[in-house]
Amino acid sequence: MASSWVPDVDPASDFSLANIPFGIISTPDNPAPRVAVAIGSHALDLAALAAHSDILTTLFPDIPALADAVSQPTLNAFAALGRPVHRRVRAGLQDLLSTTGSRAPLLRDDPGLRARALRPLREVAMHLPMAVGDYTDFYAGYHHAHAVGTMFRGPNAALQPNYLHLPVGYHGRASSLVVSGAPVRRPVGQILLPGPEGAGEASRPATGPSRKLDFELELGCFVGRGNEMGRAVPVGEAEECIFGYVLLNDWSARDIQKWEYVPLGPFNGKNFATTVSPWVVLADALEPFRTRPIENPTELQDYLKEGREDSVFDIRLEVDLTTAEGDTTTIARTSSKHLIWSFPQMIAHHTVGGCPLRTGDLLGSGTISGPGGAGERGSLLEMTENGKKEVLLAGMDARTFLKDGDSITLRGFCGPDGARVGFGECRGRIYSAVQR
Amino acid sequence: MASSWVPDVDPASDFSLANIPFGIISTPDNPAPRVAVAIGSHALDLAALAAHSDILTTLFPDIPALADAVSQPTLNAFAALGRPVHRRVRAGLQDLLSTTGSRAPLLRDDPGLRARALRPLREVAMHLPMAVGDYTDFYAGYHHAHAVGTMFRGPNAALQPNYLHLPVGYHGRASSLVVSGAPVRRPVGQILLPGPEGAGEASRPATGPSRKLDFELELGCFVGRGNEMGRAVPVGEAEECIFGYVLLNDWSARDIQKWEYVPLGPFNGKNFATTVSPWVVLADALEPFRTRPIENPTELQDYLKEGREDSVFDIRLEVDLTTAEGDTTTIARTSSKHLIWSFPQMIAHHTVGGCPLRTGDLLGSGTISGPGGAGERGSLLEMTENGKKEVLLAGMDARTFLKDGDSITLRGFCGPDGARVGFGECRGRIYSAVQR
Ligand SMILES: [Ca+2]
Ligand SMILES: [Ca+2]
Ligand SMILES: [Mg+2]
Ligand SMILES: [Mg+2]
Ligand code: NI
Repeated sequence: MASSWVPDVDPASDFSLANIPFGIISTPDNPAPRVAVAIGSHALDLAALAAHSDILTTLFPDIPALADAVSQPTLNAFAALGRPVHRRVRAGLQDLLSTTGSRAPLLRDDPGLRARALRPLREVAMHLPMAVGDYTDFYAGYHHAHAVGTMFRGPNAALQPNYLHLPVGYHGRASSLVVSGAPVRRPVGQILLPGPEGAGEASRPATGPSRKLDFELELGCFVGRGNEMGRAVPVGEAEECIFGYVLLNDWSARDIQKWEYVPLGPFNGKNFATTVSPWVVLADALEPFRTRPIENPTELQDYLKEGREDSVFDIRLEVDLTTAEGDTTTIARTSSKHLIWSFPQMIAHHTVGGCPLRTGDLLGSGTISGPGGAGERGSLLEMTENGKKEVLLAGMDARTFLKDGDSITLRGFCGPDGARVGFGECRGRIYSAVQR
Repeated sequence: MASSWVPDVDPASDFSLANIPFGIISTPDNPAPRVAVAIGSHALDLAALAAHSDILTTLFPDIPALADAVSQPTLNAFAALGRPVHRRVRAGLQDLLSTTGSRAPLLRDDPGLRARALRPLREVAMHLPMAVGDYTDFYAGYHHAHAVGTMFRGPNAALQPNYLHLPVGYHGRASSLVVSGAPVRRPVGQILLPGPEGAGEASRPATGPSRKLDFELELGCFVGRGNEMGRAVPVGEAEECIFGYVLLNDWSARDIQKWEYVPLGPFNGKNFATTVSPWVVLADALEPFRTRPIENPTELQDYLKEGREDSVFDIRLEVDLTTAEGDTTTIARTSSKHLIWSFPQMIAHHTVGGCPLRTGDLLGSGTISGPGGAGERGSLLEMTENGKKEVLLAGMDARTFLKDGDSITLRGFCGPDGARVGFGECRGRIYSAVQR
C-alpha cells in the first residue's frame, strides 16, 4: 500500500493508511463530539469536511446519508449504514489521504481546509465511540478458561461440560462502559473473609475495597447492523453484522466476583467499569490478518458450523502495567488468535433463540491468553495463580493484583511497519475506593 | 379519595383516581408515541393537553419542562424530573380529574378538549414506557429461590451461601424487552438431551425449540434519577431514585438455561423476550400499601440496613393461563410482599461498587412466589416441580410447560374497589419457534 501525504505518519504508527479507524472526537475550539478517522498522529475530522467542503459529496455522491452520519456524537448512524458502505468510505478516504491518490489534491492542496480538518491527536479528546444498547461478554479465550478452571476445579474438570459446545457468555453492564483514559475507581463490595486463624470459625462476608482488582485483555466487537427480534443470524451471514473492533479491558474484582457469582453469574465484580479503546478498526481493515482459531474437537451444532476456517484474527496484543511512580513493564504478550469461538459464532449463538442485536451493541471476546507462561496471560488472576505468585515489575516492584495508582494499557496491532493496522491504546488508571 | 368525573370509571378498574399511572400511547389519528395517564377506561393524552390548551402551564406553572417531557416518545424525560415533580404532577392531575377538584372545570367543561385528550383505552396502542439502558434481574423472591434450590440441590443446600447476605442479581438483556401484547416466539436453542435409554450413553446437546418454556411473575422497578459512576446510592436515599413500577414476565426457557448457565449465568434461556406492563404506577401511588418483607435472620452489611421496616408492597398478584382454545385459568395468586430484599436494598447493592444507574433502567424483583402450594407459585418450574406434576386447566386441559398458542397474563393491584391502584395486564402469547 502507498503511504500518506499527511505529515508525521510514523512507520510504527497503528494508524497507517492501511487502517483508517473511526472514532468520536472533540476539540477545544469545537466541543461537539463528531466523527473522525485516525491517520498517523492526526485525526481527520469528517464533520469538518462535511461542513466546510464538498469533499464528502464529491467522493461519495451515492451515500447522501454520510454527511449527517459523520456529524453525529456517536458512530451508530455510520455503523448502521452497513458494511458495504463502510468498505467504500474507507477506500475513498484512503484515496484522499494517499500520496498516489487521485483525490488527494482535494484536501492536500487546500491549506485552509487542512488546518480545519486535520488535527493533531494530542489536541483531540476522544469519546466513547458508540452508544451501546447492550454489552455481552463471552468467554472464548480457551487458554484463559482452561487456566482459571484448572485453578478452581483441577485439570480434569477445568472446562464446564458446555464449554466446547457453545460460546458461553453473559450480559454485561452497558452503563459503565468508558473510553480509554477514563479513571477507574476501585470498587467497594462484599467479600468473603476467612474466619480468624485457628479459631475454626467460618468465613464471613465483609464490605470494603476489593483486594483483588484485576484487568482482562479482550477484543471487543461492535455490531453494525442488527437483527429483528425472533430472527436468528446464520453464522455465514454474521460477518455482515460486524462494524469493527476495539480493545477491551473488562476490569474485574475477583474477590467480589467469587462471593457473588453462583448461581447467576458475575455482577458487581464486573459492572464498575469496562474500558474500550477509542478508535474502531473496521472489520475490513482486519481481513488480511485472518487465521484459524484454536481447534475444537467437538462435533458442533449446525448453527455454529462455519464455512471458513480462518475465522479469527492474528493481532499482536500487549499489556503494560505502569506504577504510580511511572515505571512501565510489559507484563503480557499474546495474540487474538487464541480463541476457540469466532465472533460470527458468538453472533449466531447470541441470536439463535431470537435475541435482537442492535447497532452499537458490544461483544467482548473473553480474556485472551496464550498457552504459555505468565508472560502470555491476559489477567493477573492467571499470571499470579490467584495471588500465589508475584509478577515482577520494573523498578524492583511486584504485584499480585492492582494497586491504587497503577495503570493498565492494552495495545494491539497487525501488519508490518508502515502498514500497521492497530488500535492505539486502551488505558485506565486505578483510583482509590471512595471513602465511605 | 373522591371519584372521577371521567365516564365509565368502573369500581373494579385498576386505574382509579387513586392511581394515575403513566404510559406511552399512540392513536390511529396520531401515530406519534407520547405520554398519557390512565383513568378508568380512558387515557388522558398529556401531549394533547400540552399542545391544545394551557392546562399544564396553569396547573404546573413552575414545571416548565413538563410540556416537552410529555411530548416525548418515552417516559424518560418525565422520569428524570425526579420524584418531587412526579408527586406534584400526580396530585395536580388527580385534582383535574376529580369530581371535587378545584381545577376539574378546565377539562370537564371543555368538550372539544375532552374529545381530543380523553381517549378510550380500546382505541389506544401502548408502547414500551421507557427507553431502557440496562435491565437487571434480581432473585429476591425468597420462596421461589428456596423452592428451586430445593428441587435442584435438596432442602439443606437450597440457598447458596451468599443468598441471605446480598441481593443476588444478574444483568439481563435490554434489547428484548417488549410491552404487554407483543408476541413471544418460542426460542430455539441448545438443550442437553439424555442419551438413548438403557444404552448407557452420555447425554448430548441438540438444537431445537425449547421444550420447557416458562414464565416468571415479577415486579419491575424503573429508575427515575440515577447515580454518577463511582458514587454509591445509600440505601436510605434509594427511594428517591425510583420512578415507578410495572409487572414483569421474565420468560424463561428452562432447558436452554440449564445447559448454558454454569458458570456465567442465564443467557439465551432468558434473552429472547421479557414483557412489561405498559402503565408505570408511580412510586407514590404505592406508598399506602407498604408492608414488611420476609424476615432475614442474617446480620446485614451496613450498606444494606434499612431505616424502615415496611420496605416492600403488598400487591395482590395473579397469573392467568389462556389456552389457544380460549379457556382461561387463574393458575397462581400471591403477593409482592414475598420478597426478602427491597428495591432500595437492590439499588444500594447495585451501586455499592460504583455502577451507574441511569434514568429508565429497569430492575426486576425476581420471581415472586408465596410460601404455599402450586397455586401460589410464580413459575411453572415450581408449580410442576420441573415438569413432574401437571397444572390442571379449565377445559380439561393440563400443562407442565407452555404450549404454542398459550397466553400468560399477569395482573396486580392493591386497594379497595373504587380506589384501586393496579397495573392492568402484562400479557404475552407464545408463537411457534421459527422453522429453520
Ligand atoms: Ca471478561
Ligand atoms: Ca427472573
Ligand atoms: Mg467489565
Ligand atoms: Mg427475560
Ligand atoms: Ni369517552
